[in-house]
Amino acid sequence: MANSGLIKDGWFCEVNDKSFPGQGLALKVDKVLYHSKSEFQDILVFKSSSYGNVLVLDGIIQATERDEFAYQEMISCIPLFAHKAPRKVLVIGGGDGGVIREVVKHSCVESVTLVEIDEFVIDLAKKYLPGMACAFDHHKVKVELQDGFQFLRDAATRERYDVIITDSSDPEGPAEAFFQQEYFELLNRALNDDGIVIAQASENVWLNLGYIQNLVKTARSVFPKARYCYTTVPTYTSGQLGLIVCAKNESVTLEHPVRSPTPEEQSQLKYYNPKMHTASFVLPTWAHHQIYR
Amino acid sequence: MANSGLIKDGWFCEVNDKSFPGQGLALKVDKVLYHSKSEFQDILVFKSSSYGNVLVLDGIIQATERDEFAYQEMISCIPLFAHKAPRKVLVIGGGDGGVIREVVKHSCVESVTLVEIDEFVIDLAKKYLPGMACAFDHHKVKVELQDGFQFLRDAATRERYDVIITDSSDPEGPAEAFFQQEYFELLNRALNDDGIVIAQASENVWLNLGYIQNLVKTARSVFPKARYCYTTVPTYTSGQLGLIVCAKNESVTLEHPVRSPTPEEQSQLKYYNPKMHTASFVLPTWAHHQIYR
Repeated sequence: MANSGLIKDGWFCEVNDKSFPGQGLALKVDKVLYHSKSEFQDILVFKSSSYGNVLVLDGIIQATERDEFAYQEMISCIPLFAHKAPRKVLVIGGGDGGVIREVVKHSCVESVTLVEIDEFVIDLAKKYLPGMACAFDHHKVKVELQDGFQFLRDAATRERYDVIITDSSDPEGPAEAFFQQEYFELLNRALNDDGIVIAQASENVWLNLGYIQNLVKTARSVFPKARYCYTTVPTYTSGQLGLIVCAKNESVTLEHPVRSPTPEEQSQLKYYNPKMHTASFVLPTWAHHQIYR
Repeated sequence: MANSGLIKDGWFCEVNDKSFPGQGLALKVDKVLYHSKSEFQDILVFKSSSYGNVLVLDGIIQATERDEFAYQEMISCIPLFAHKAPRKVLVIGGGDGGVIREVVKHSCVESVTLVEIDEFVIDLAKKYLPGMACAFDHHKVKVELQDGFQFLRDAATRERYDVIITDSSDPEGPAEAFFQQEYFELLNRALNDDGIVIAQASENVWLNLGYIQNLVKTARSVFPKARYCYTTVPTYTSGQLGLIVCAKNESVTLEHPVRSPTPEEQSQLKYYNPKMHTASFVLPTWAHHQIYR
């Protein structure tokens, strides 16, 4: 196991001169549980003193046990409740299992395909983030160990999905292609006519609004409708993470749910509710103007 | 000028074992502009590499030039636009001038009284945060250098306000009294019948939900209506800060504005808009249940 150069004096510090210069987030480390470099990325798992176990890929916090539900629920529920009857769902990335855990809760969903390039992440999540990696054996779930981009190129000739969720890491490194026009085109081709896609936007309005503006523009060059929304996560830099959501059909309303959770579904949701769906699309005035001008 | 023990290796680190154990926020320091201990608190001002000048009181970031408007606009606009005709406004604390800068923008407001205990803060803001401290000479503004608590005790026998904004520091130290029942009682007495008060709640749902729950309970023991809302600020721990807003009259709706900004007013607002007003009261399901159960 490699030594973690990211931990100093007992604290993990997330610092990134390119993505968020001059700003850092620190979590106190109780114990390093795992650290190595896989074929695709640097993987660190540590037990924090106040956020449970923490998964870090290439120096960036991906999930902590205490707050991960805020991201997993929102990236799953927003497209699923904006869709009138989602049955077939595709998840690109998301090897920690958090997104598929959320998707299988939805009674109308019949199948979820997870495409993850790095089996290491799945294995580590099963060992160190068992609360997230609890749905891999669910009868609705099928796992494909493959590059998401390549999967979509192949899948586009045969499969169509109602909802596609891109749960990638940030656009620097192996996930870079997930933020470009060709990827949106592949998503579009893999969607049913009333389909919806959502992707983590890697940024938020406080950090890199120009990037979000360009991402929405790129998405709009392919989809008739593309919107930015966000979720709050205290262990992501600035405390929030943006999501970009697109509809293949212009008449689909993304900003408001078309269905409500059943009482059984709502009882399993700690973050999402129909009012939160709508609120997550409301942006500060300056950010709204810059993104949608 | 004292040396700042809060800065290590060129970074200011906000760490507080009591309020947010195991979690820290770091800003890169270009230059320390001021550091001393006044009669009331430890005051640090530094130029950061990416957030402009930063004011720190007792080790806690109070404001940065880049993101301060998110807090100042929301703590001012929410009570002012929830009130049908606010004319007389009282600000307790807020010596940096950010709140009064916002309040004087509202055309219906006739007078703003600022009560600040620490003149040092006002002088420093004028020097190092001139964009915030720009309204002290405004014709609507009157400054009282006094303890806010004592001012309210005296004022309660003579003055009544439409909106009272408590812009205090956190409840540890000199501001502790601003978070207790006696303070809410004084606020209630100093309000006109349709008056609204708002206070920074010092916490957010991710950090100390139990504290917020108790604060809302305390406020409700005095006011017929008390609600929690929040604003996002990337340089506050977890990226958001809660606000508690209370109405003296039960029929007042706090969660939605009763008036819209005039075009002139909206053109000066970078964060607030009527949709944001409503969205700021929408909480994650678990937090809503715990605060309002």
